[in-house]
Order: sequence, then structure tokens, then C-alpha cells
Amino acid sequence: MSVFTPLTPDQVGSWLKRYSLGALERLEGVAEGLQNSNFFVDTVHGRYVLTVFEQFNREELPFFVNLMAHLARHGIPCPTPIANRDNEYVGEIAGKPAIIVTRLGGRSLTQAGVAHCAAIGTLLGDLHVAAQSCGVRQKHQRGAAWRRETAKQLLPLLAADDAALLRDEIRHEAQQVSGELPRGIIHADLFRDNVLFDGERVSGLLDFYFAGVDALLFDLAVAANDWCRGAEEGGELDAARTVALLNAYHAVRPLSEREHLAWPAMLRAAALRFWLSRLLDAHRPRTGELVARRDPDEYRRLLRGHIAANRRQVWIDPPAA
Amino acid sequence: MSVFTPLTPDQVGSWLKRYSLGALERLEGVAEGLQNSNFFVDTVHGRYVLTVFEQFNREELPFFVNLMAHLARHGIPCPTPIANRDNEYVGEIAGKPAIIVTRLGGRSLTQAGVAHCAAIGTLLGDLHVAAQSCGVRQKHQRGAAWRRETAKQLLPLLAADDAALLRDEIRHEAQQVSGELPRGIIHADLFRDNVLFDGERVSGLLDFYFAGVDALLFDLAVAANDWCRGAEEGGELDAARTVALLNAYHAVRPLSEREHLAWPAMLRAAALRFWLSRLLDAHRPRTGELVARRDPDEYRRLLRGHIAANRRQVWIDPPAA
Repeated sequence: MSVFTPLTPDQVGSWLKRYSLGALERLEGVAEGLQNSNFFVDTVHGRYVLTVFEQFNREELPFFVNLMAHLARHGIPCPTPIANRDNEYVGEIAGKPAIIVTRLGGRSLTQAGVAHCAAIGTLLGDLHVAAQSCGVRQKHQRGAAWRRETAKQLLPLLAADDAALLRDEIRHEAQQVSGELPRGIIHADLFRDNVLFDGERVSGLLDFYFAGVDALLFDLAVAANDWCRGAEEGGELDAARTVALLNAYHAVRPLSEREHLAWPAMLRAAALRFWLSRLLDAHRPRTGELVARRDPDEYRRLLRGHIAANRRQVWIDPPAA
Repeated sequence: MSVFTPLTPDQVGSWLKRYSLGALERLEGVAEGLQNSNFFVDTVHGRYVLTVFEQFNREELPFFVNLMAHLARHGIPCPTPIANRDNEYVGEIAGKPAIIVTRLGGRSLTQAGVAHCAAIGTLLGDLHVAAQSCGVRQKHQRGAAWRRETAKQLLPLLAADDAALLRDEIRHEAQQVSGELPRGIIHADLFRDNVLFDGERVSGLLDFYFAGVDALLFDLAVAANDWCRGAEEGGELDAARTVALLNAYHAVRPLSEREHLAWPAMLRAAALRFWLSRLLDAHRPRTGELVARRDPDEYRRLLRGHIAANRRQVWIDPPAA
């Protein structure tokens, strides 16, 4: 996360008095991510992450925070929100809503192998199943409606070939029937930098702030687009990694025939979603102490790759039942 | 825990299908403790402990399990119960109620130093404060009423000098005013073998199955009786360790004047409680695959030591405010 709101040890130390976590031992700003300000907080009792929300109101947070708490109590390795002495997860620091969550061990991968993709498939299946009993719901904020609206805003700003590609993709997506696919709460942003690994075991799923209800298959497509590309700079997925991801997922939550058929279009929709948000970031910069920006062209290339693969009728075989 | 109910990997593997924890990788019986059957369970997602309850009915468990969940979500390092796909903590295996909780790192100490006693004081203070907002309550099952009843059962079975000591202690306790001390949920069994340390940091508080509402000071007295004795086999507390425990606790939840005055009697009540339960175990053996038995005489010596110290008017100074 980028640090938009700087905090001092005194500020955090006094804020911690409302919790049962012991005194502050160490405070450090975290320079990764795009949406919030994050800090590593070590206390007498353990290691935590303090997140200050820059873009959410207090009313928007209970969904995300209760989802994390729900998943953690089902054994999904995600940060566990810590309640304060008033028994509330969401507090306030520097006039902004803030939470403190457990800090998980492990490291993000820059290159994922076949075993890592299988581990992600298993965990995404477990996450989708565990989330079924979650008492809070919210729609996915970057769903098809957002993609249509965002495309409208961006079209006047784009070069002719990009505008044509975007128009075609929105039209293509409108022809799909993703509303009839199995739905539920999805993570919706399961990139490599949102996952910690300890060896070949997933030790942490991070950053649930795009989570919401959508086609479950969309989550798999977002993950495949990031995890299953080979080392080369192309716009196509590596078959071995993709099959490992899908088979491992399928073993936990079996994919339906309709989901198999929807897979190529879903890969395109997932690529479109990130091409759009990166274009939006590029045209509307925010400011911060530290800002990470991501390349929209990466997702345009990926999208063109999916379209080409789709045209050649080459896609991944349905996983074995 | 002793293993009273043996379980096979097949049994546990199939039981785990009701959870989102991934497949079983390793199962091992745990040979410590007295009340339940415990197993280390490693799955694809992590390391857990499965507890099969030998002495509780299903209706008695929600208090303990929800207390652990409540404390864990406040950052107290205790095992976190994992919910199954029906969103319930308490399941059933081999016809008995069972739960699965996170397995915490660290090791129990055989000898505790001053820094360890301070860490226990801090954590016990945090536990008492965090438990104030816990929505479930239950009285402490080994409180003054239990001690009176148990003494009645045991008196006919004891040698004359033990019977005299027991009668005197029950009378002494009846003269105290512990009902007017600050009350709340206490752990009530915070011995060294129920705490894991990672260096000088507490990494786990275990075994909440004696927890319930009583005088908060009783919890400190139970802890002092186990943690603050020196290396020698005597019946007196080491002053440096005891002061470290009390001062660290006092910094989190300040002890009142009434609690200072009640301390010597509370040490006696806490020693009496464990002398009684060990006498009861010695007179009423249970059976199991592996059984750990504890020495009642250790707590008789400690009780006599407290009485002697009390008579000499030697007790720990109130902690600095």
C-alpha cells in the first residue's frame, strides 16, 4: 500500500490503548498497493498491520472486515481483524477509519510455478465454499456494470485502436450469459502480490477490498490472468499452470459445464476489468507519499492474446470430473 | 491431554471434509493434560489441534468456544476455533463433541524467570479487560462453593492432619469477602503447561475449560502459585517474580486497595482449589490410553507455606500505582 496518511509512533501507541494488544514496539509504513495506507505494527503480543482507509467511509467497511473475520474463522489464511475494547473492528485514527489485523508470515512470489497455481486453485475453492455461509453481502464493485460505465468515460480519452478494442470488448461481454453462472462472494483481486507463500503452502490471502458478489468463475479468471502466464512477455496463458489451477479448484468446488463454456469469455472480462482500472488510474492520478502505478498496456496485451486464442478456438480443456 | 478416544487418519480426513481446511497431511495424538483427547492435525492450509471432549456435553461447550473466539479476535494469543461449513464451531467425531482450533507455536516453560512472570501479568490483565465485552458468561466451576462441597466429600477419606488443615482452610475462606472484589471471566488454570512462550513473548494461552466468572484476583493467585515459585521445592513464592507479575498486571488493570488486602487469602484459596482437585483425582482415578496424574502434596506444601507466611504477616507489597 502507498502511505497517504503518515502516522507517528505516539499516535499509534496511544490508539493501541483501546486494544488488548500490549504496548507498541515498532511502527513502519508499507510502500505497496494502491488503495489505503498500511503500517506494520509490532506490539508486546505480536505482529499486526494497521490499515488507514483513504477511499472508504465507515459504513462501507463492515462488509470487508466481517468477510475477513468470517473467512479467518473458517481457516482461510487471511488477516484476522482485531476488535477493540468496545468490541468493534473499525476504529478511527487521524480522522480516518482504520482497522488492525494480524500480520501473516511468508512472501509474495514474482514467478509462480505449477504447484503454486494448484495451491491457489485449492484455496480459491475453499474461499468460495467458506464464504457461502457469510452473513454479509455486497455486490462486486468492478462488475460488468462498472466496466460498461468506465468504458463510456474512457472512450473519448483513448487512441482510435484502443477505443475500438474497448468498444468490441464491451459488446462481446454484453453477449455473454455470465448472470447464469454460479455466484457468490469473490476476492476479485487475487494477484501474486496479494498472496503470501511459505514454501508451496499459501500462508496469506490479502487485500479483500474489491471483494463482492459476482460469478465465482470471474475470480478464477482474475487469478489465471496473473498466476498462469509463463515467464515470457506474451498475452497467453501457460497451459500447465492453468490446468493445475482449474483442476485444484474443481476438486474443491466442481466447475459446471456452463462454467467450462464460459471460461474463454471470462478470461477476457477479467483482463478487461484491469485494463480499464489501470487506464483510469493513468488518466486520473492520485497523490501520496509513496505511489505505486501499474501498466495498462500489460492488460491490453493480455486481452488481445485472449481474443486471438479465442478466435483460434484454442482454450483450456474442461478439468477432469 | 491424555488420549481417551483414539482416532484414525481416515476418520479425521473424512471429518475434515466439513471444513475449509484442505486435506489431512498428518495426525498425531497428544499425551498431555487431563480433561480431553487432543490431536495435532496438519492439513494443506496449516496446523491445527483437534479436541474431543470426554467430560462435557454439547450444551456446555459454547461458552468455552465462544470465549476463545472472542479473546482471539481481541488479539489475546489463544487457540482460534475454526467454524465448519455449517458455520458452527462444535462438531462431532466418534460420537463425541469435538472442535478444531489453530495450533500455536512456542514451547511451555519448566522454569519461569522474572521476565516471563511480567509477560504473564501483562497478558492476564489484557485477557481480563478483553473478556469484559464477551457476550457469553458462565460461573467458575471450581469456585468457593465447589471447594466447600468437595471438602465435604473428601474429609472422611483424609488422614487426621490433612482433614484438620482442610477444615481450617474452608473456615478461613468463609471469613473472607472475595464477593466484593472485582469480578469477570477468568482463565482459572493458567499454569506453565497451559502457556506457550516464543522467547520472552507469550505465543499461546491454552486450555480454557475451567474458565468462568469469579474474582479476577483469583486468576492472578493461581498464576502466582505456579509461576512465581523459585527453583527450590518450598511452599513460598519468590518475591521478585511475584512483584513482576503483579506490577505488569497492575499496569494494564490497576489493582484496588481491597484487592491488595485480599491477596494473601487469595493465594490460599487458589492453592486450596488445586490441592482439592488433585486429592479428588487421587481418590477417583479415570482410565485412558495415556494418563497424566499430578501430585496433591505439592499443593498441600504450598498451602502450608502461604499459611505460615500469612501468620508472619509477610506478604508482597502492593504494586506501585
